[in-house]
Amino acid sequence: MKNFRNALLLSTLLVLALCGIAGAGESPGTNLTELTDVQKYNRAIHIMAMLLVGFGFLMVFVKQYGKSAITATYLLVSVAIPLYFFKDNCIGCGGPESIIDQLILAEFAAASLLICAGAVLGRLKMYQYPLLGALFVPCYCLNEWLVLNGGLGFVHKFVDTGGSIVIHAFGAIFGLGVAMTMTTSTEYTAAIECDDTSDRYSLLGSMVLWVFWPSFCAALVAPADVPKTAVNVILALCGSTLATYLASVKLRGKISAADIANATLAGGVAIGSVCDLAPPGGAFLIGLLAGALSTFGFAVIQAKITELTKAVDTCGVFYLHGLPGLFGGLTALFVVNGIAPGAQLTGIAITIVLAAVSGLLSGKIIALSGRRTEAYLDTEEFAEG
Amino acid sequence: MKNFRNALLLSTLLVLALCGIAGAGESPGTNLTELTDVQKYNRAIHIMAMLLVGFGFLMVFVKQYGKSAITATYLLVSVAIPLYFFKDNCIGCGGPESIIDQLILAEFAAASLLICAGAVLGRLKMYQYPLLGALFVPCYCLNEWLVLNGGLGFVHKFVDTGGSIVIHAFGAIFGLGVAMTMTTSTEYTAAIECDDTSDRYSLLGSMVLWVFWPSFCAALVAPADVPKTAVNVILALCGSTLATYLASVKLRGKISAADIANATLAGGVAIGSVCDLAPPGGAFLIGLLAGALSTFGFAVIQAKITELTKAVDTCGVFYLHGLPGLFGGLTALFVVNGIAPGAQLTGIAITIVLAAVSGLLSGKIIALSGRRTEAYLDTEEFAEG
Amino acid sequence: MKNFRNALLLSTLLVLALCGIAGAGESPGTNLTELTDVQKYNRAIHIMAMLLVGFGFLMVFVKQYGKSAITATYLLVSVAIPLYFFKDNCIGCGGPESIIDQLILAEFAAASLLICAGAVLGRLKMYQYPLLGALFVPCYCLNEWLVLNGGLGFVHKFVDTGGSIVIHAFGAIFGLGVAMTMTTSTEYTAAIECDDTSDRYSLLGSMVLWVFWPSFCAALVAPADVPKTAVNVILALCGSTLATYLASVKLRGKISAADIANATLAGGVAIGSVCDLAPPGGAFLIGLLAGALSTFGFAVIQAKITELTKAVDTCGVFYLHGLPGLFGGLTALFVVNGIAPGAQLTGIAITIVLAAVSGLLSGKIIALSGRRTEAYLDTEEFAEG
Repeated sequence: MKNFRNALLLSTLLVLALCGIAGAGESPGTNLTELTDVQKYNRAIHIMAMLLVGFGFLMVFVKQYGKSAITATYLLVSVAIPLYFFKDNCIGCGGPESIIDQLILAEFAAASLLICAGAVLGRLKMYQYPLLGALFVPCYCLNEWLVLNGGLGFVHKFVDTGGSIVIHAFGAIFGLGVAMTMTTSTEYTAAIECDDTSDRYSLLGSMVLWVFWPSFCAALVAPADVPKTAVNVILALCGSTLATYLASVKLRGKISAADIANATLAGGVAIGSVCDLAPPGGAFLIGLLAGALSTFGFAVIQAKITELTKAVDTCGVFYLHGLPGLFGGLTALFVVNGIAPGAQLTGIAITIVLAAVSGLLSGKIIALSGRRTEAYLDTEEFAEG
Repeated sequence: MKNFRNALLLSTLLVLALCGIAGAGESPGTNLTELTDVQKYNRAIHIMAMLLVGFGFLMVFVKQYGKSAITATYLLVSVAIPLYFFKDNCIGCGGPESIIDQLILAEFAAASLLICAGAVLGRLKMYQYPLLGALFVPCYCLNEWLVLNGGLGFVHKFVDTGGSIVIHAFGAIFGLGVAMTMTTSTEYTAAIECDDTSDRYSLLGSMVLWVFWPSFCAALVAPADVPKTAVNVILALCGSTLATYLASVKLRGKISAADIANATLAGGVAIGSVCDLAPPGGAFLIGLLAGALSTFGFAVIQAKITELTKAVDTCGVFYLHGLPGLFGGLTALFVVNGIAPGAQLTGIAITIVLAAVSGLLSGKIIALSGRRTEAYLDTEEFAEG
Repeated sequence: MKNFRNALLLSTLLVLALCGIAGAGESPGTNLTELTDVQKYNRAIHIMAMLLVGFGFLMVFVKQYGKSAITATYLLVSVAIPLYFFKDNCIGCGGPESIIDQLILAEFAAASLLICAGAVLGRLKMYQYPLLGALFVPCYCLNEWLVLNGGLGFVHKFVDTGGSIVIHAFGAIFGLGVAMTMTTSTEYTAAIECDDTSDRYSLLGSMVLWVFWPSFCAALVAPADVPKTAVNVILALCGSTLATYLASVKLRGKISAADIANATLAGGVAIGSVCDLAPPGGAFLIGLLAGALSTFGFAVIQAKITELTKAVDTCGVFYLHGLPGLFGGLTALFVVNGIAPGAQLTGIAITIVLAAVSGLLSGKIIALSGRRTEAYLDTEEFAEG
C-alpha cells in the first residue's frame, strides 16, 4: 500500500514533467472560432459539475460511506483527467486538434470511470481507487480508438455522439467485471443501508446530472446542432422520468426513491448515441422506453443477476448505464438514415468484450493490492469529524 | 387513479407520436445567430438548474415529505415541458421561430407550475401532480397568449420581460385556488415540521435560485442587453436579501430561516417585469421593497389569510411569488418610459382573474380523483429506504 | 445595534439613490463584443455559484451554526456587490469600461470578503457581518488600486490574473487580523463540532468551488486564452486533490474530511497568479505543491499558530487561502517570462501589510459594536424551525 502510494506520486510527477515539455497544441483561430471554443468551455464546466457534484452525490446514498464516496469521486477525476492529457500530449497517440476538445474527451473518460467505480463502491479501500483509474483509463482509450477513431480498421462511422456505448455501457460492464472479483461472501450478505438524509443527497446528485446532461451530449456538436440536441436530451429525460414513476409504482407497489434518483436518468444514457439525429418525438419515446427498462432492471433483474454472478453492483450501474446504454446504441439502427448496421453492431460487440475482459483482469490486479472481507465503513479510513 | 395513470401514459405516447411528425422548426442561420442561440442554450440550462435543484430543494424544508417534494418536482417538469412543445408544434398555436426560444418558454411554463405546486405540496398524492400539470399548462398558455401575445386584442405591449406577472403571480394565484379546494380541516390543524437538515436543504435550493435568477430574467433578451439585465437582477436580489434580514429581525424578534430561504428571492420576482429597463439604483430599490413586502407577508399576513381562506399555502408561494410579482408588474408604471398604463393594468387584471378561476376549477377536478383527509407523509407512497 | 441597523438601511438607500443618478457605463459595441460580454456574463454566474453555494456550504461544516453561516454568506454578498458598484459609479474612482467587468470585479471583492469571514465565523453576531463588509470593501479596493492599477506608482505590471494575492491572501490575512481581536478566551477553548451531515454539506460546497474555479480564474481573460487557462486550473486542482489525499494520510494516519473539503482547493488558489501563463505541466506541479502545503498547514501549523496568536481561525482560511495564495504569487517569479521581480515582491508586501493592519483595525471597530464571551449557537439569533 505504501509502495503504491509512492509509485502514484512518482508517476504523477513524471506525467507533469513530460506534459510540461510537450505542452498542448493550440490553434490561433479567428474570432468566431475562439467564441465557439469558449462555448465548448461552458459545456466542459457543466460536465465537471456532473462528474463531481452529480456522480459524487448520487453515490452518497449509502449511509455508511458517504465521505469515502465523495473522496473517491475527487480522486478518480483527478487521476483520469491528467492521465488522458498525458496520453494525448506525451505518448503521441494523436489527440484532437484543440485543447478544449481534449478537455471534454478527458471528462468523458472520467465519467466512464466514475460509472465503473459505482459498481464497486464500498468494496475498495481508498488507495485502490487511483489504482482503478490508472488501469481503467488506458483500456477506455483503447476502446475509444478502436470504436470511435477507426483504429485497426474494424469500425467505420460508429454513431455514438453522447457516448451511450463507449462511455456508459463500457464503464458499467468494466465495473461489473471488477465487482465480480472484488465481492466477497461477507459483503454479499451485508445490507446496503441508507437513510432519509443520504436519500436526499442522492436525489440532489441525480438532479444535477439531469440538469447538465444536455451539455454532456452536446459538448462536441457544432453550434448549429446544439439547440436541437439539447431539446432531444431534455425530452428523453422527461420521458424516462415519467416512465420511472409509472414503472416503479407498477413493479414495486410503492415508489422507490432509488428508482427516482437513478432510472430517471436512463433517458439521458439511452439518447446519447442519436442525440443529435433523432426527431423530438423519437427522443421522447427512447426516453420512455429507457426509463421503463432501467426501472425493470432495478426492480426485477438486479436481484437475479446478483444471485447469478455473486457480484454486488453497489450503485446498480448496470441497470442505469449498462442496459440503457446498450439499448441506446441499438436505437441508432432504427433512427439514423444511412447507418451501417454492421459497423454499429461490431462497435457494440467490441465494447462489450473489451470492457468485460479488461474489467475482470483489472479486478484481479487490484485484488493483489488487498482484498476486503468485511463491508466498508467510513470510520475505517476517515478520522472522526 | 389507475385509469388516470393509463390515460397519462397514452397521452404522452400521443404527444410523442405527433411531435415526431411535426418536428420543431429550425432556421439555418448565420454563424452569429448560431452562437447567440448557443448562449441562450446556456441560460436555458441555468433555468433548468433553478427548476429542479432550486425549486425542488426549496420545497424540501418540510421534513415529512422531502422525497415526495423532489419526486413531484421531477414529474411536474417532465409533464410541463413536453406539453408545451406539443402545443407549439402540433396544435399549431404558432410558437416562436426557434427551437431554443421554445425550450425557454416551456421552462417558464414549468417554473410557473412549480410555483403553483408549492402551494399544495403535501395535499396531493403523487399521481395528482401530473394531473395538476396537465390542467395548469393549457391555462398558463391561454394567459400567455392573451397578455403577452395580444390574443383577442385586449392587451398591447405588456411589459413583463422576466415574468413577474405571467409566471410568478399567475402560478401563485392558481396555486392558492387549488389549495382552497384541496385543504381539509385535518390538514389545516396539522403543523408543518422542519428540522435543521431540511432547513439547510431548503437554503441550498434558495441559493441555487438566487445564483441563476439573472439567467431566468435575461433568457430571451438581446445579447447587448444581457449584462445590464444581469446587474439589475443581482442588485435587486442584494436589496431583497438585506431587507429580508432587517424585516425578519424587526417583525419576529429573531431571524427565521424560512424568511431567509424565501423572501431573499423576492427581489428577483419583483424585478422581472422591468429587469431590462430599470436603472441600477431603481433595481436595488425595487429589491429592497420587495424583500420587505415578502417578509411582511410571511410574518404578518400569512396567518391572517390562512385563517380567512382556510387554505394552507404550504410553501407560502403567495408571499414570495404572488405579492412581489404583482408589485413588480405595477413598478413598470413608474419605471418604464412611454408605458401604456391601461394595457399594463388590464394584463395584470386578466392574469389575476384567469389564475383564480382556473385554479379553483382545477382544484375541483383534481378533487374528483381523490381528496386527502390526513396530512401527507412520505411513507404513505414511498418504500422504506 | 439598532442604530447600526438603521445606519445600514440609510446608507443602502443612499447607494441606490446615487447609483440611480449615475447609472453604469455601457459601450454599444459590435456584435462580437456583445457575444464576448455575454460569455463573461456566464462566467460571472459561475462565480456567483461559488460565492453563495460554494463558500456558503463550505462553511456549514460547523454543526452549531449552519443557518448563520448561510445567512451571513447571503448578507456579505449583498453588501459587497452594491458597495463595489457604488465605488465605481458614484465616487468616481474610475472603474472598468464595461458593466460586466464591473460585476466580475465586484464578485472578486465579495469572494475576498467571504474568505475573510471564514476566519471569524461563529465569533460575530449577525448584524456584525454587514459591518465587516462595510469595513472590508474599501480596504480591499485600496489594495486593488495600489497593487493592480498602479495607484501611487508603487507597483507596475503585477502578475495576479486569478487573484492568488489580491483576493485570497488579502482576504485570509485581513480575516486573521479580525480574528485576533474578536476571539475570546472562552471561545478559544470551545471545540468546533461537526457531524456527518454537516461534513457532507461542506464537501458539497467544496465541490461547487472546484467545479467553477476555472471560470473564476478565466473570468476576465481574452476569449483566446480561456481554454488554456481552464485546463491549467483543472490540472492544478487535480494536483492539489491528489496531494491532499496523500498528505492527509501521511500526516494524520487517517483521512480527514476537512482536509478533503478544503486543501483540495489549494491548487485553484495557488494557480491564480499565473493561470493564463503557466504550461500545463507547471500548473499540475503548482497544484501538487499547494495541496501538500495546505494540508501541512491544516494538520501541523494550524495548532501552533492558534497557540501563538490565541486567535481561532474557524475555517482555517489561512491554510487554504493564505499560505497557498502567497505561494501562488511567488510562483510567478519562476514561471513568467520577463517578470519584474521587484514589482511582484512589492505588491505582495503591500498586500500583506495592508491586510494585516486594516484587519486588526477593523476588528477593533467591530468589537465596539459588541464582543462575545461565549461560543455562538444558531439558536441565539434564529427562531426554532
